Amino acid sequence: MAEICNVALLGQKFMGRPHSIAYLKAGRFFNLPLVPKMYTVAGRDLIALAPFADRWGWENYSTNWKDVVKDPEVHLVDIATAPYMHADQALAAIAAGKIVACEVPLAGTLKEARQMKNAAVRSRRAQTFVWFPYRRYPAVVLAYRMIQSGRLGRLYHFRANFLESWAGPQTPLTWRFQKKYAGMGAHGDLNTHIVDLVRFLAGQEVVEVTGSVAETFVPSRDVPAATAAKGRRPARKPSGKSDVDDAVVFLARLAGGAVGTFESSRLATGHNSTLSIEMNGEHGAFRLGLDDLNTLWYFDNREDPQIAGWRKINVTRPADHPYMGAWWPEGRGLGYEHAYVHAVADMMTVLGEEEPTVPIPDFAEAYETHRVLEAALIAAKNRAAVKLSEIK
Amino acid sequence: MAEICNVALLGQKFMGRPHSIAYLKAGRFFNLPLVPKMYTVAGRDLIALAPFADRWGWENYSTNWKDVVKDPEVHLVDIATAPYMHADQALAAIAAGKIVACEVPLAGTLKEARQMKNAAVRSRRAQTFVWFPYRRYPAVVLAYRMIQSGRLGRLYHFRANFLESWAGPQTPLTWRFQKKYAGMGAHGDLNTHIVDLVRFLAGQEVVEVTGSVAETFVPSRDVPAATAAKGRRPARKPSGKSDVDDAVVFLARLAGGAVGTFESSRLATGHNSTLSIEMNGEHGAFRLGLDDLNTLWYFDNREDPQIAGWRKINVTRPADHPYMGAWWPEGRGLGYEHAYVHAVADMMTVLGEEEPTVPIPDFAEAYETHRVLEAALIAAKNRAAVKLSEIK
Amino acid sequence: MAEICNVALLGQKFMGRPHSIAYLKAGRFFNLPLVPKMYTVAGRDLIALAPFADRWGWENYSTNWKDVVKDPEVHLVDIATAPYMHADQALAAIAAGKIVACEVPLAGTLKEARQMKNAAVRSRRAQTFVWFPYRRYPAVVLAYRMIQSGRLGRLYHFRANFLESWAGPQTPLTWRFQKKYAGMGAHGDLNTHIVDLVRFLAGQEVVEVTGSVAETFVPSRDVPAATAAKGRRPARKPSGKSDVDDAVVFLARLAGGAVGTFESSRLATGHNSTLSIEMNGEHGAFRLGLDDLNTLWYFDNREDPQIAGWRKINVTRPADHPYMGAWWPEGRGLGYEHAYVHAVADMMTVLGEEEPTVPIPDFAEAYETHRVLEAALIAAKNRAAVKLSEIK
Amino acid sequence: MAEICNVALLGQKFMGRPHSIAYLKAGRFFNLPLVPKMYTVAGRDLIALAPFADRWGWENYSTNWKDVVKDPEVHLVDIATAPYMHADQALAAIAAGKIVACEVPLAGTLKEARQMKNAAVRSRRAQTFVWFPYRRYPAVVLAYRMIQSGRLGRLYHFRANFLESWAGPQTPLTWRFQKKYAGMGAHGDLNTHIVDLVRFLAGQEVVEVTGSVAETFVPSRDVPAATAAKGRRPARKPSGKSDVDDAVVFLARLAGGAVGTFESSRLATGHNSTLSIEMNGEHGAFRLGLDDLNTLWYFDNREDPQIAGWRKINVTRPADHPYMGAWWPEGRGLGYEHAYVHAVADMMTVLGEEEPTVPIPDFAEAYETHRVLEAALIAAKNRAAVKLSEIK
Repeated sequence: MAEICNVALLGQKFMGRPHSIAYLKAGRFFNLPLVPKMYTVAGRDLIALAPFADRWGWENYSTNWKDVVKDPEVHLVDIATAPYMHADQALAAIAAGKIVACEVPLAGTLKEARQMKNAAVRSRRAQTFVWFPYRRYPAVVLAYRMIQSGRLGRLYHFRANFLESWAGPQTPLTWRFQKKYAGMGAHGDLNTHIVDLVRFLAGQEVVEVTGSVAETFVPSRDVPAATAAKGRRPARKPSGKSDVDDAVVFLARLAGGAVGTFESSRLATGHNSTLSIEMNGEHGAFRLGLDDLNTLWYFDNREDPQIAGWRKINVTRPADHPYMGAWWPEGRGLGYEHAYVHAVADMMTVLGEEEPTVPIPDFAEAYETHRVLEAALIAAKNRAAVKLSEIK
Repeated sequence: MAEICNVALLGQKFMGRPHSIAYLKAGRFFNLPLVPKMYTVAGRDLIALAPFADRWGWENYSTNWKDVVKDPEVHLVDIATAPYMHADQALAAIAAGKIVACEVPLAGTLKEARQMKNAAVRSRRAQTFVWFPYRRYPAVVLAYRMIQSGRLGRLYHFRANFLESWAGPQTPLTWRFQKKYAGMGAHGDLNTHIVDLVRFLAGQEVVEVTGSVAETFVPSRDVPAATAAKGRRPARKPSGKSDVDDAVVFLARLAGGAVGTFESSRLATGHNSTLSIEMNGEHGAFRLGLDDLNTLWYFDNREDPQIAGWRKINVTRPADHPYMGAWWPEGRGLGYEHAYVHAVADMMTVLGEEEPTVPIPDFAEAYETHRVLEAALIAAKNRAAVKLSEIK
Repeated sequence: MAEICNVALLGQKFMGRPHSIAYLKAGRFFNLPLVPKMYTVAGRDLIALAPFADRWGWENYSTNWKDVVKDPEVHLVDIATAPYMHADQALAAIAAGKIVACEVPLAGTLKEARQMKNAAVRSRRAQTFVWFPYRRYPAVVLAYRMIQSGRLGRLYHFRANFLESWAGPQTPLTWRFQKKYAGMGAHGDLNTHIVDLVRFLAGQEVVEVTGSVAETFVPSRDVPAATAAKGRRPARKPSGKSDVDDAVVFLARLAGGAVGTFESSRLATGHNSTLSIEMNGEHGAFRLGLDDLNTLWYFDNREDPQIAGWRKINVTRPADHPYMGAWWPEGRGLGYEHAYVHAVADMMTVLGEEEPTVPIPDFAEAYETHRVLEAALIAAKNRAAVKLSEIK
Repeated sequence: MAEICNVALLGQKFMGRPHSIAYLKAGRFFNLPLVPKMYTVAGRDLIALAPFADRWGWENYSTNWKDVVKDPEVHLVDIATAPYMHADQALAAIAAGKIVACEVPLAGTLKEARQMKNAAVRSRRAQTFVWFPYRRYPAVVLAYRMIQSGRLGRLYHFRANFLESWAGPQTPLTWRFQKKYAGMGAHGDLNTHIVDLVRFLAGQEVVEVTGSVAETFVPSRDVPAATAAKGRRPARKPSGKSDVDDAVVFLARLAGGAVGTFESSRLATGHNSTLSIEMNGEHGAFRLGLDDLNTLWYFDNREDPQIAGWRKINVTRPADHPYMGAWWPEGRGLGYEHAYVHAVADMMTVLGEEEPTVPIPDFAEAYETHRVLEAALIAAKNRAAVKLSEIK
């Protein structure tokens, strides 16, 4: 009989739903050594919180996350709030001896991320996880395993993009465009994921950011109607300053000598949300992307050149592909939410002292990703290369 | 406060999981006038049934479907058993005054399908649904709406394929290859779906099967090890006869004059499970498929020819695309199971006397699809065209 | 020093340019045992003929093809006229002891095709070629060789389409829509090519047409302005009858048991000119098409299923791919006209008693393709299957 | 009657064939105000030169390019030699009052490029052309026109890649890896083209290289067998130093504020020769590439978002698409060499004082592209941003 892991979810907004469905599904589709129980959820908006808890089956709810974090019944604290709140919540949870799972980016600033990492390292008891769910699509795992087994060889090049387009000039000034709440723009939301994926897949650290551009294409945006002053119609629409990046593009070098680009944008017209990564190595090449997430493209460079070609692998065979034994007959693909289900399944597996499908980053590893983001911002500011060894 | 609809699921094997997850998710992601309650599940294998009910949250379970069908607490009987059992179960459920949702193909034989249809028609109370979930992917619904609004115009051609490849010569003789259990092979499993989709999208009936081939490429298969005689090793592997089709391909004409092909196979090497449909009409053309289910391809034939082209529509925008308001931010795609969630949501919507996203076939409409399958089998046998008016 | 082959081209219209550029290029890019010389061109329209000969470098021209065919200087007669003229010209050329290269379809009617075949067979001297240039794209040749070497295995299915869309209801009544000139519509223009390709690639004959539809979607078309009566404006646009097929779709069976479809249309909205063929066999599958003619898709069914996938082979490597040694560095693709250059190169190679890259059909082989077209028309008329053995 | 332009081709090696076929075809497919005549070809290797001239129809040949350049019969000098020879030849041709067409990159060094530009500017008579043939594929021209007409709007992002993979560690040390002959590696061969294309399509200059990496992944290569010392077998294979870049990747900013990447490599495994460009602007986005050169992808951002999507435009319609009126019926694509034919056609058009399909760069414009290459090299060396205003 599997043991129970009582979960407390902090934050019921943006990531509340994917986390909730992940807890709901993980134990039904996977045979886990530890089964997550949706114990409680904390949020600030009581009006929204009660129906949320009811709908998703959270047994309790609270508007005070500090109480929740200290609740002796809680085993795992899942931080799904805005980045600027992560550090306080994670430090409190670690102090309370909880297992902590934190959303990305790890924190609003590098300093906070460092505090979180240090707290985790100092506390011998602390088990920390960082949600990097995109590691957990079957195509990504298959690529990882193929690369581990030598099918990439020496890596020469990579191209990593995460392109969205929802932030055109007409998009109003929400909290996402304000540094005090969001910390960063596309850089934190999007580059975080692809930096983690490249580090993960290549099995190498970024050692230098060689050049970088951080751009706010639309520095002034209309204040949303609801937020604008009530009672009288303004002569013209009030506007405010957007002080986060709309896009960050940077050149980087990995420890093994590979050179590549990271690009994230909220104004890449034509892309709803296109994460794509390509890697070219001595023995092979790989390409994968979120908009066709059940597919892995692979080029075998040791194949007879007459019949070599990019191979479109449909990663949906229960008997052959990572995680797919838990799902459907071959050919039936997964969607966005499944990465979250896999993340929960792997966390429970780790907590049950078994091997996860692929490693889950802890705070220390997520901090490495955060250092790369920081280096890119400094390089953009300095208009010059920055070595990672310069970033503490 | 939404009312409750108590569901009884008959059959916990193949379709048990997609139906269960659909009931679990529908009310969480959609605001429904009626909320499904996972009341009871019936199955023959008691050893498997109890943990299934426990895992999925079915409140009760039973090995006697006849009792379940008569249970006054049950509102909706969901038939997810093998086709040869559908008629008995559906007739009993209708007789007991239940709402009935039946898996496809509607029945093992046309005669049984006709009995089911007649019972549904005779019983004034009977509300029947047939699960044709593929109608309910956002790309299919978008195509349907665009066609309804005149963007196809007069239809000239269609090509509808459902291609799988799991039934190579090495695949052993399971029940799926035996007529007495399965009724049909690829024809029942696969052509059913694409005949429904073409009828649905075109808004026209098939009026003639002009030519047809039903083929059993591998007529003799090894008996599965587990089924073979125990106690001594056989001199050679025992084999048995496969008496269902491995593939059925047929030419058809629609009421409006369009000509097209339907092809289903279990030996289409290279295809895990590729459902694809293309339609070419006077004003435009459409293409969609299961292996890229978040995409609709559209060609606008009234566009300036200099810039006309097949348009790849990523059907994932919450504000713009069918069902997507219930899910994730744009660019995050759905997977296989979501069609089942949408089917449950639409059934509950209909029962709540609201408009479903798109119509759900009842027994009478599913019977029309079954007649087309029958016509294709007769045409294959006769090596000659068959008019649908000849099929009663 | 290579010998010279004096070519006489009959017809300077539609196929005059691709044939001319083929003669111009073949000897420049390929080292041939026999070099084509553009000796003379025959056509009916003297006004157009002289500048055509001048522009392309034909040394002579004539409005009397009968003289040209008898000219003792002529070695090879290339018939590039409308199908209804092929028989007369071919018979005369054979009688005059010439090598004959004939465009497709071989003739306007099966009877004429039979006469041509018989004349060729009877004349021991006659060397006949039929232009089936699509055999000669590198991707097609590579597929052919891979299939020959066993990479397809037992063939189960094929799908062969040749889809165009230029013949909408607004397209006027040119000679192509009139049986007396064109013989057939899409069937002769398009199905001819894909029947040849399937026979060639599969290495098997069609043994049965199981069902067929020949459709004239637009039976009445406006007479072109230029052709309409001059001098006064008609009260309404004069229209005339189109008596050829706009589309022919048929089901066929090959000698080895495979079943498949052939489909050609001039009203397949969205397709400029899309020839595509897919074959699914026991050991592998192949897919290729004219709209991406430098690519061959291959699925290796004997590969480890974990990493098996459709492989996109870029067939442009000089050292590895058919014909490519004559052209450019890898990655630089060929276009439509190159198939014609390859056909000329292969004809000269055969005439020089060397091995062509792949076999060139003669009249006898092209007649087999014509029989399949005939069977499809009879099956469409009879609404019943036709065995090829019934077609003489 | 069209006038004649006598062409002298300098160099019969690498670019000798595409230039020759371009001269051969241009006047046959296009109606030109001036017709190129293949007057003479100059090369150093007499053994190879005579058969080359014979095969391609060059009326004369010479081993002394200096004589050729002064020949009063010559109108246009076409420089198709290695980059380090361009300056001498161009200066001599300009001095002799010839029209000059020069291959890319413009010169081996920026200094030479500047000399060439200055000579052209100083000489009032000089008409100079630089072969940037990739501007002249129909898809590129269509994109250019659509952008000119406002369909891109404010440009935010671009990604420009030119990826090859022939220079793995086993590839021997040819002249292409030696700076004294080749000047640059992938940067000169490949980045030249995409810098020109981005400048051309965007209609904006590069104003800053923000970061850059120039990488020689394989610094030591085996000396080719033929070049190694003869007479005795060496104890081990002799190797030599490769002193050009294998890859150059850089970040750049355009005058209008767009940010983007340029990447060229000879070690991008999986790519035979993949040139691809994507541009994302306020009103639309464009994507095109050499490996599918008859296609333009276009996203219309002003379209109803419900049906907006990347549109695959098949740029082959004679009545609608640039250059296609000269070629084949719709759907028949062009290949690599056609860009060269179009370049000759446009040069003749300019010389005949008519409007070319799109502008042809002269030395002054090609010099701007060369400055960008230089800036990228300096930025790579300095590990810091370089403004183009710093490059003279």
